[in-house]
Amino acid sequence: MKVAMAQQNYHIGNFDANFEKICQGIKAAKEQGADIVVFGELAVCGYPPRDFLEFRDFIQRSEQVIEQLKAVSEGIAIVVGAPTINPVIEGKDLFNSAYFIADGEVVHIAHKALLPTYDIFDEYRYFEPASEFKVLEYKGKRIALTVCEDIWNIGNENPLYTICPMDEMVAQEPDFMLNLSASPFDYKHAVDRIDVLRANVERYGIPIFYVNNVGAQTEVIFDGGSIVMNDAGMVVDELPYFEEMVRTYELAPLMGSAGVVAKDHEQPKEKMDLIYRALLLGIRDYFGKLGFTKAILGLSGGVDSALTLVLAAHALGAENVRAVMMPTEFSSDHSVSDSVKLVENLGCLSDIIPIQNTFQSFRDMLSKQFEGTAFNVTEENMQARVRATCLMALSNKFGYILLNTSNKSEAAVGYGTLYGDMCGGLSVIGDLYKMEVYALCDYINRDAEIIPKHILTKAPSAELRPNQKDSDSLPEYAQLDEVLFQYIENRKGPKEIIEMGFDKALVDRTLRLVNMSEYKRYQTPPMLRVSSKAFGMGRRMPIVGKYLL
Amino acid sequence: MKVAMAQQNYHIGNFDANFEKICQGIKAAKEQGADIVVFGELAVCGYPPRDFLEFRDFIQRSEQVIEQLKAVSEGIAIVVGAPTINPVIEGKDLFNSAYFIADGEVVHIAHKALLPTYDIFDEYRYFEPASEFKVLEYKGKRIALTVCEDIWNIGNENPLYTICPMDEMVAQEPDFMLNLSASPFDYKHAVDRIDVLRANVERYGIPIFYVNNVGAQTEVIFDGGSIVMNDAGMVVDELPYFEEMVRTYELAPLMGSAGVVAKDHEQPKEKMDLIYRALLLGIRDYFGKLGFTKAILGLSGGVDSALTLVLAAHALGAENVRAVMMPTEFSSDHSVSDSVKLVENLGCLSDIIPIQNTFQSFRDMLSKQFEGTAFNVTEENMQARVRATCLMALSNKFGYILLNTSNKSEAAVGYGTLYGDMCGGLSVIGDLYKMEVYALCDYINRDAEIIPKHILTKAPSAELRPNQKDSDSLPEYAQLDEVLFQYIENRKGPKEIIEMGFDKALVDRTLRLVNMSEYKRYQTPPMLRVSSKAFGMGRRMPIVGKYLL
Repeated sequence: MKVAMAQQNYHIGNFDANFEKICQGIKAAKEQGADIVVFGELAVCGYPPRDFLEFRDFIQRSEQVIEQLKAVSEGIAIVVGAPTINPVIEGKDLFNSAYFIADGEVVHIAHKALLPTYDIFDEYRYFEPASEFKVLEYKGKRIALTVCEDIWNIGNENPLYTICPMDEMVAQEPDFMLNLSASPFDYKHAVDRIDVLRANVERYGIPIFYVNNVGAQTEVIFDGGSIVMNDAGMVVDELPYFEEMVRTYELAPLMGSAGVVAKDHEQPKEKMDLIYRALLLGIRDYFGKLGFTKAILGLSGGVDSALTLVLAAHALGAENVRAVMMPTEFSSDHSVSDSVKLVENLGCLSDIIPIQNTFQSFRDMLSKQFEGTAFNVTEENMQARVRATCLMALSNKFGYILLNTSNKSEAAVGYGTLYGDMCGGLSVIGDLYKMEVYALCDYINRDAEIIPKHILTKAPSAELRPNQKDSDSLPEYAQLDEVLFQYIENRKGPKEIIEMGFDKALVDRTLRLVNMSEYKRYQTPPMLRVSSKAFGMGRRMPIVGKYLL
Repeated sequence: MKVAMAQQNYHIGNFDANFEKICQGIKAAKEQGADIVVFGELAVCGYPPRDFLEFRDFIQRSEQVIEQLKAVSEGIAIVVGAPTINPVIEGKDLFNSAYFIADGEVVHIAHKALLPTYDIFDEYRYFEPASEFKVLEYKGKRIALTVCEDIWNIGNENPLYTICPMDEMVAQEPDFMLNLSASPFDYKHAVDRIDVLRANVERYGIPIFYVNNVGAQTEVIFDGGSIVMNDAGMVVDELPYFEEMVRTYELAPLMGSAGVVAKDHEQPKEKMDLIYRALLLGIRDYFGKLGFTKAILGLSGGVDSALTLVLAAHALGAENVRAVMMPTEFSSDHSVSDSVKLVENLGCLSDIIPIQNTFQSFRDMLSKQFEGTAFNVTEENMQARVRATCLMALSNKFGYILLNTSNKSEAAVGYGTLYGDMCGGLSVIGDLYKMEVYALCDYINRDAEIIPKHILTKAPSAELRPNQKDSDSLPEYAQLDEVLFQYIENRKGPKEIIEMGFDKALVDRTLRLVNMSEYKRYQTPPMLRVSSKAFGMGRRMPIVGKYLL
C-alpha cells in the first residue's frame, strides 16, 4: 500500500480554490501511484475558519465540496478534513472531522475528540468532542484516523484532557495511524511535534503519517513539516517547511522496522532561519490572499524598520516595496543616510518626505489650546501620527498595504504611538523581542551586509525629541526582554520572576507597563506569530483590569 | 431562613477592592438579618478575568481572599464565586467554582459544568467542566448550588450541552436553588433570563435565588437584575438593573406557593431605556476602572457624535466632557451651528478648531507624490486623520479619553477611516445600528429637545467632499440595517436573507462589504455591547478569508 501526504496551503472560505488545490493533490498522488492521499485538517474550508462556522451557508458549501470529491475518488482514497453536522441535537452543532472517501462514497468519518481551546485556538467554541473511536479498514489494512490534537495528550506531565483517543483505538489493532493537522508554527514547535509523534509510535507500536497544513492565515503561520515515522520511531521523511508538497510512501517498510539501521530525515531547525522563512510566508500569504502585491512602510533609520523592509523586499520583491523616510528637526543625519544605503542595497522604491511643516501646522492649529504647556509626549506622538497619516495617504492613493514595524518589546511595554507607528495592515516583526530583531538582522547579513552595520550598532532612539534614547524611558533591552519572556511566554508572576534573580524594581515596572498597555495592543494590527505566545488572538487580557498595577 | 442577594460591581484583578466590597455586602446582609449572603460568579477576581487565569500568582491572590473571607464568616454563610485548582492532573488546571463558607470553614464547593464558549465567552479555555453534582445542607435546608450556565441548558430546541446539572441534583431532594451568575446584558436578555429561571422552577418544583453581577468590564456590561422566584414560577423580586444592591428574603414564603395569588415584580424592560442606562454604566465603568474622569470627542454636526456626546455628558457630567468641532471647506454651516446648539443645551466644554490649513499642509507635503492624481477617498480619509490627530493631541496633553462615535452600521460595512474617525479608547454606540441611533436620540429627546431637531432630520453626510451624502455610497439605512441584523445577529447566509424578501443585489453587496471590512474592525476600539452579537471579542472572523467576496 502507498500513502501520499499532501501538504497544502488553503484559503479560508474560498471553497472553489481549495477544491481545485485538493484536485491537484489527488492528481499528483495518482501519478505517484498512491492508494490513499491524505490532506490536512479542515482542508476543505481552510483553518481556522472562526465564526464563519456559525453560518449554515458556509457549512453547506463545505458539504458540496465533499460531494465533488466523492466524484473524483475513483482509483484513490481521499482523506480530507471538513466540518460535519452533529446529528444529535444536544451539544454543539458541528464536529471537526476527517472524511475517508473511496470509490465515490464516504466510507468513514472520524471526529476530533480533543478540541484545542487555548492560545489562538477556539475549537470548543464550534465543535462537539467525539465520544466514539473506530478504526477503519481499507484494502486489508486497519487505519487509526485522527485529527490533530487527538494525538497530543501524551507524554506531558500535565495533560490538558482526560482521555486519549488512540488508547481507545489501539484495542482494535490498527496497522498504522493517519493524523490530519493544522498545527501552527512557532520556532520551537517542530521539535515538540517530533517528540509527540515518537511518543505515539512508542506507545502504540505502529507507524504514523502526519499531514500538516502549510500557509499563513492572517497572523497564524502553518509550517507544514508533515512527517512519516516508522514503527521504530524514526523520522523516515519530514516534508519541507513553508512549502506545498505531495509525496508518496510505501507502507510496508515502515512496519517491523525495529532494529533496522536507519537515520532520521529531519529538516534543519535553526531558530533564525525558521523565523525568517516563516515571516516571508506570512507576508506573502497576507498580501496574496487579500489580493494585494505592494507594500509601503516608514523607514526611520532604526533596526526595526530596516528589518521589516528587508523581509518585505524578500517576500514581495524589492520592486513592490516602497520605503518612506520622513525626517523632522529631531532626526539625525544618519537616520536618512543609513536608510538610503539600505534602500540602495535592496533596490526598492523610496521617498524622502520631510514632515516638519505639517508637524508645525498641527502645533499652530492647537497653539491656543496648548498655550503655556511644554513640549512633551503629546508633540512626540504628533510626529508619529503625521507620519502615519502620510503613509496611509500613499497607501490609499496607490493601493499599498502599510506594514507595521514595531517589535514585541515595544508592543509589550506600550512604547509606541497609537494611530502613529502602531499603524499598519500587518505587523511583521511584532512577535520578535528587540534582541531577536538584532539576531535576525545578523542572520540576514550572514553572507553580505544588506542592513548597513551602523543601523545595528547605534543606540535605539525614536528621535521624537532632541537626543532621545530608548534607554531614557525603558530598561536595557537585554534585561527587559528576559523579564518579558518570563511574563509573556512562560506566564510567570512577579514573585517567580524575582526569584529567578531579576531585580524587583525592574520586574515590577516591566509587568506594570505590560498590563497598563492592554488598551493599546487591543487596536494594533495582526502580528505574525512565531513564538509560543504572541500578542493578539492568542493572548486575551481585560483592558479595565487592575492586576499588578 | 433568610437569604441575601448581593448584586455587586467588581474590578478584575483588584483583589483588595473586591474583598472590601464583599465585606460591605456581608455587613449589609447581617444588618438585614440574613443567614446566607450570596455573591456573583468569580466575584473574588472579577468576571471575565481572561488570561490572567493562566497566572498562578493571580490564582494564589484569589485563594488568599477566600482565606480572608473564612475569617469573616462567623454568624453568616458566604456564597461566593472564585476559581479553584483542579487537583486531578488530567484536564484543565482550574474549575469555575462557587464556595460555600460558614463558621470559618469552606463547607462546600460547587464547580461549574457547562462552560460557555461562544460569543464573548471563553470558559473552556480555562476551566475543566465539573462531573459531580452534590446538594449541600445548611441549617436543615438542602441547597442546590450552581454557577450561571449550569441552569441554562433547558427549555430550548437545540441545547448546547449534553447534560443538565440540576437533573443530577434533583434526586438529592434540594429545598431551593442558588445560582451565581455573570450573565451579560443585551437588550433582550432580561426576558430570556426570566424564561430560563421559570423553566428550572417548573421542572424542579423549588424556588431559586439567582444572583448576577453588575458593572461594565470593558465592552461587556453586566446588568444585575438578580431574581428571587418562588416555586410557582413567580418573580417575587427582581433587583434593579445597572445598580449595586443587597436585599434579603425569607425562604419560607417562596415554598408551597402554588395557587397563592401573587404578581410578578419585574423591572420595566423598554429597549431604549435599557440601552441608555447600559451605555451610561459602560462609560462610567470604563473611565472609573481605568482611573480617568474626562472625555473628549469630535462633534461633526451629525447624529452619531451628537448622541455620543449626550451619553458622555450624562455619564460623566457635562463639565468633564469636551466636544471639538473641526470644520473644513466641505463642512456645511449647520455642522457647526447645530453642534454649538447641542453643546449649549448640555453645558459641556467645546472648541472650534478649523483643520483646513493642516489638511492643506498634508496635500502640499505630498504634492510631488500625488501629482496628476484626482481628489478621491485618499483626501477624504486624510481629513478624518487630521481630526483624529488633533483629538489625540488634546487627549494626550490634558488626559482625556477619546470617545469613538461610530455606529454599528458603519462599522459593519467599513464606512469609516482607520486611524481617523475609527479612533478612540472606547466606542460608545458601536453596537447600535443607525436606525437605533435615531431611536435612542428620540428617547433622549422624549421630554425636551436636548439634541437639536435639525441634527435628527438632515440627511447623513461625512462632509469629506462637496455635497457628499452617505446614501451616495451606501444603501438606505432602513434597508441596510435589516440586512445587517439578519447577517450579524442571526447568522443568516445570503440565500436565507434573499428568501426573506430582500433584494439580491442589496444582500450580496452588503455581505461583501461586511466581510471585506474585517481588517478595519480588527483595529477598532472596544465597543460597548448591548445586542446579542456585537463586533469585537464576541465575533471572531478571519481577515484573509474569501467568503462571500
